[in-house]
Amino acid sequence: MKIKQPTLLVDVEKVRQNIRKMKQKADISGVVFRPHFKTHQSKRVGELFREAGVDKITVSSVSMAMEFAGNGWNDITIAFPLNWREWEEINDLAKRVKLNVLVESAFVAEILARKATAPLGVFIKIDTGYHRTGILPDHYLEIESVFSVLETSSLLSFKGFLTHAGHTYHARSQDEIMEIKEQAAGSLQKLKARYEARFPDLILSYGDTPSCSIADDCSAFDEIRPGNFVYYDVMQYHLGACRLDEVAVAAACPVVALHPDRSEMVIYGGAVHLSKEFIAADKGFRLYGYVAKPDEHFRWQKPIAGAYVSDLSQEHGIIRLPEKSLKSFRPGDWVAIFPVHSCLTANLLKNNTVFV
Amino acid sequence: MKIKQPTLLVDVEKVRQNIRKMKQKADISGVVFRPHFKTHQSKRVGELFREAGVDKITVSSVSMAMEFAGNGWNDITIAFPLNWREWEEINDLAKRVKLNVLVESAFVAEILARKATAPLGVFIKIDTGYHRTGILPDHYLEIESVFSVLETSSLLSFKGFLTHAGHTYHARSQDEIMEIKEQAAGSLQKLKARYEARFPDLILSYGDTPSCSIADDCSAFDEIRPGNFVYYDVMQYHLGACRLDEVAVAAACPVVALHPDRSEMVIYGGAVHLSKEFIAADKGFRLYGYVAKPDEHFRWQKPIAGAYVSDLSQEHGIIRLPEKSLKSFRPGDWVAIFPVHSCLTANLLKNNTVFV
Repeated sequence: MKIKQPTLLVDVEKVRQNIRKMKQKADISGVVFRPHFKTHQSKRVGELFREAGVDKITVSSVSMAMEFAGNGWNDITIAFPLNWREWEEINDLAKRVKLNVLVESAFVAEILARKATAPLGVFIKIDTGYHRTGILPDHYLEIESVFSVLETSSLLSFKGFLTHAGHTYHARSQDEIMEIKEQAAGSLQKLKARYEARFPDLILSYGDTPSCSIADDCSAFDEIRPGNFVYYDVMQYHLGACRLDEVAVAAACPVVALHPDRSEMVIYGGAVHLSKEFIAADKGFRLYGYVAKPDEHFRWQKPIAGAYVSDLSQEHGIIRLPEKSLKSFRPGDWVAIFPVHSCLTANLLKNNTVFV
Repeated sequence: MKIKQPTLLVDVEKVRQNIRKMKQKADISGVVFRPHFKTHQSKRVGELFREAGVDKITVSSVSMAMEFAGNGWNDITIAFPLNWREWEEINDLAKRVKLNVLVESAFVAEILARKATAPLGVFIKIDTGYHRTGILPDHYLEIESVFSVLETSSLLSFKGFLTHAGHTYHARSQDEIMEIKEQAAGSLQKLKARYEARFPDLILSYGDTPSCSIADDCSAFDEIRPGNFVYYDVMQYHLGACRLDEVAVAAACPVVALHPDRSEMVIYGGAVHLSKEFIAADKGFRLYGYVAKPDEHFRWQKPIAGAYVSDLSQEHGIIRLPEKSLKSFRPGDWVAIFPVHSCLTANLLKNNTVFV
């Protein structure tokens, strides 16, 4: 193998460890583990999950559900507000696999009730504080109006309440992340208490890698759906959700130019390879990735102290690094970039991925 | 046609107009027009350029050069610091088409001299103030050390000086953009004066859409290489480089949820469709795109006043919009998003593009 272009390196052993650890946590907590597959979108990584005993998955689009159904996955939740423009594809999928969808209004539930031609599980999306999507947990009338619609259809069955506490990504400490999880658990438990007489099997489904990684126990829920943990990234490291040696992917990028006068080097690896996701700090400082030297097995070492990706154009990446480190590079070398947001980097490098 | 997923709509008539206008400017200025194809990366758009009489192109990677060589383009400049890890592909290409590459150090020129097996045109990249790549215009020794290496090879021929004034993207006014262009022209002209006795055919090649769009005249150069102008976008509009009705692409995205309580709606259209490029303003305000209603021909109207994409997750987009506009939408409608950076959006939606 030769690194010619920006290439996603996936460290299979680290992926296995990340999966094993989260699976154990789910097992010990006595909850269903339904990992989100949007991070990797990879048949091969899917097989590593299957090896670990996983048989239920989460995806974020109908196309992803179709892709994984094609790879033999037959219990899939599409954790995205129902896009009923794809109702034909949804019906087709629901005939082949056990499919759950998400609604957050009676309006959409009604369309679903009219269009469905195969059995569908339906989760109601609850907004436990992220304020991106979902019904607020104390808006009982809205929730019950969805129940009423679902009852009119023999094909739709209410499965439970689903939330994604995405505001953990804005938290400033591990304690704050745990508080967010506790609040979400409280809101969902209250809904369960209110409705479990009517729906004895209702499921509380909870997402997000930061809280599932930091928490020792997830037993307040019935199901967890973290996704990013399979690879982790610089953002998760900054949140305290992983160690740097747990980051299981890096973008291998050729070095194409050196600029010692301004402590910079230029790599072939830009916004179309890494994505423009960054971590911000004061005075306009932006970090688009850490930088490491590779070893002879196409794995990577610890990040180089003081080195980071400081800017990205379409195909160019700019790395700032200490003079001493810069001196050890030549155009034609390659470096391993720890991505800021592995979901986006893996998506961009989907067709240029190597398992090491 | 039905919009089911995020889809790039390309308005062919607007593309034709944008090409015609820039081609005319090049013709009137008496300069070669070698448009950058990284923005569209599309065979079909390439044909629209060919219709307008274009036969020389710029790309930013060896892969793109290979793709367009496959579509019959046979005069290609790879305007990216030479990635000599791809020397086999470069030699292969150089056997088939007239190929120019970019170097910015004697070190890389030497490798090229050793590896080249077919004739190659070589531009020296000059840094006229953007400080991303290139040799500073008064670093004559560095420039001449590249000449010395090129003279050792019968396959390499020096073509001229190439610059990309990317700092126009940070300019705060049209006047500032014109000043940047004048400075670049001055630096390049000085180099020409210094070396044209030795290289009578040397070419001054200049890039960037903002200055080529705003300038009436480009005759200070021998060749221009703008790329983004073919589609334009919100960023170019903010820079004063285009009118909004010249933006030739929009991302069609299904509406999946409404949240009138916070003046928001949610679309299927996230970072993996639009890219995370944004325009920043005070107090953490970020704009990821303008929002327009579509017409029945899959074209789009003016942006809705006060509406903008305010946040993006992997697949979700959040639109903030005035109450009155929000009332006119239902889940299942679709909207047209004017991208902030069309190069990145077009790259992400490459496999889901429709010409209208």
